Amino acid sequence: MIQTPASCPLCTPTSEKVLWSDDQFRVIGVTDPQCPGFVRLISQVHIAEVSDLPASAQTRMFSLLVAIESAMRQTLHPDKINLASLGNQVPHLHWHIIPRWKDDPFFPDSIWSAPKQRPDTLSSAASQAARTAHAETFWKAIPAVCAAVR
Amino acid sequence: MIQTPASCPLCTPTSEKVLWSDDQFRVIGVTDPQCPGFVRLISQVHIAEVSDLPASAQTRMFSLLVAIESAMRQTLHPDKINLASLGNQVPHLHWHIIPRWKDDPFFPDSIWSAPKQRPDTLSSAASQAARTAHAETFWKAIPAVCAAVR
Repeated sequence: MIQTPASCPLCTPTSEKVLWSDDQFRVIGVTDPQCPGFVRLISQVHIAEVSDLPASAQTRMFSLLVAIESAMRQTLHPDKINLASLGNQVPHLHWHIIPRWKDDPFFPDSIWSAPKQRPDTLSSAASQAARTAHAETFWKAIPAVCAAVR
Repeated sequence: MIQTPASCPLCTPTSEKVLWSDDQFRVIGVTDPQCPGFVRLISQVHIAEVSDLPASAQTRMFSLLVAIESAMRQTLHPDKINLASLGNQVPHLHWHIIPRWKDDPFFPDSIWSAPKQRPDTLSSAASQAARTAHAETFWKAIPAVCAAVR
């Protein structure tokens, strides 16, 4: 029996922008003006590591991850995509799928690194607005993208 | 034809501890006293994103990733495993497979975050020595672990 701790914020979320879900996984939108389009792919079951999942669920999870990455590239056109399953703070399997741009405040470091605080190189309001619009398109595409993954 | 830039440090590595390799991928040991057992899984082909790989290579890469994670758990017993494909600095597909302990200098943040610098909670010399020994066992297991992945 897999434990579902009442204290786990991914088992008992109080506020999430769920873009798609089924019985195994869900995708939520992460509101972060520095990384518009950021999403997380979250296991519906409370486990810590990928290798805790049955093999069939691992396969499906990775297919979802690649489908989401592909859709992110097609709609958002970021300079790079970062994929990460950390879970040090919340040991419930979840993937960060993060669009990165060369002029975001952390590039070329991780988004968990100290920001560079270099306003001279930050993106213009116009490009920010375009990214925000593309991010909205990307988020809207998620249900069809995930539903197409067997 | 996929470009292999001479300037890419993963295409033309000058110093790597290669634990296993074939024509698609290689695994290298990362010497980091704070994360003994750290390894990277690197594409032999110069591509930036997972979705640049053919589907069959994606499947094999994820199988290698899970096999390495499983072996890391069995030999090292870290408190958590972090998996990440970032590539902002070196846009050549590679995965960081990082053992984490609750008393490592960065926990519960990423290893790219600012260290906590809390020597009072850092692991003892004895537990560090045990981890280093387990990390050696883990690295030695990598060739068999990867060879068993179809």
